Amino acid sequence: MGITPLRIGVLGSGSGTNCEAILQACERRELPAEVAIVISDVADAPILERARRRGIRAKFIGPSQFKTKLEPELEQRVVNWLQEARVGVVALAGYMRVVKTPLLDAFRGRMLNIHPSLLPSFPGLRAWEQALAYGVKVTGCTVHFVDAGVDAGPIILQEAVPVQEDDTPATLHQRIHEVEYQLYPAALRLFAEGRLQIEGRKVKITSS
Amino acid sequence: MGITPLRIGVLGSGSGTNCEAILQACERRELPAEVAIVISDVADAPILERARRRGIRAKFIGPSQFKTKLEPELEQRVVNWLQEARVGVVALAGYMRVVKTPLLDAFRGRMLNIHPSLLPSFPGLRAWEQALAYGVKVTGCTVHFVDAGVDAGPIILQEAVPVQEDDTPATLHQRIHEVEYQLYPAALRLFAEGRLQIEGRKVKITSS
Repeated sequence: MGITPLRIGVLGSGSGTNCEAILQACERRELPAEVAIVISDVADAPILERARRRGIRAKFIGPSQFKTKLEPELEQRVVNWLQEARVGVVALAGYMRVVKTPLLDAFRGRMLNIHPSLLPSFPGLRAWEQALAYGVKVTGCTVHFVDAGVDAGPIILQEAVPVQEDDTPATLHQRIHEVEYQLYPAALRLFAEGRLQIEGRKVKITSS
Repeated sequence: MGITPLRIGVLGSGSGTNCEAILQACERRELPAEVAIVISDVADAPILERARRRGIRAKFIGPSQFKTKLEPELEQRVVNWLQEARVGVVALAGYMRVVKTPLLDAFRGRMLNIHPSLLPSFPGLRAWEQALAYGVKVTGCTVHFVDAGVDAGPIILQEAVPVQEDDTPATLHQRIHEVEYQLYPAALRLFAEGRLQIEGRKVKITSS
């Protein structure tokens, strides 16, 4: 680690509970980093309020003509904000758009995402519902580096979550969330400590 | 359960370590069942020797012109052997051929398989190698009912197995095996106790 702690940029579209877990891990010094900026594609997303409440820069991307991606100009604006905030790593936290070239190129190997399943099972939307519908008895969550695929980049950490007989989508999702709130800060901590080496599809975790 | 314990027919192509785990669970009375017959498509498979050693019927299917399935006449012969042995449930244990109509129809909802991954991830051959190559941090094993798909039937039990930084295919496979030796008898016990209800893709486990 250098003299200044790692600066995290968070992108999200919703309530931002994973962002909250990251913020709290930083505040408790469990994660040697700070959140420098929070950016959302949804003007009134609660994730922005979590940043503002703490005096952290909060930015709305602005209306996009697309629903599942950003036009290159808007994505470039996101890159500019992240760079102005001297962000060392980007954490996607419930960001509901596919990341395209401008952002991918600017933060290749420095952008993480969390997904509510044990990838490669159940990529895409509402993974906990997919898991219940398939009838698995074990699901979980995955923190991975972001690449051009959907939920397909090299995996940093995974943790299993059992499916219970009486689970509904809501109860299963909540149980996965509780694990996510530990796993995402843990993965960011490994990144902050310089312990993640991407080797092809694999992420090697080196000793501290 | 009726007056006679559940009779299991085991099909396998190899060393039969899962068959051994089932045999030992029966012998220790942890599994209220008995293995009535062991059948192999490989004449000198050690799995047959495990049966013979205990005085259990051991049958070689006979040479097949195919490598990944059986011709219908041979598969019908297997069905006849299983029925003559009054088998109530068939356990595939390292059986390397796809099960086709004669056997599927005769034991629909009464045939189990164990697979060395957390399905639906990594169906097919050498799942532990697939998992290592993909770079997952958690894999596991799955006991499922057999249907016409490859490793695709309704899931009975799953258990996670962590991948370790220094795992080779051999060490990971061994760690998965150790879990399999517990999981397969546990699933057969649920079947023997009449606690498994197939509902579409899902297997409901009822209270004992």
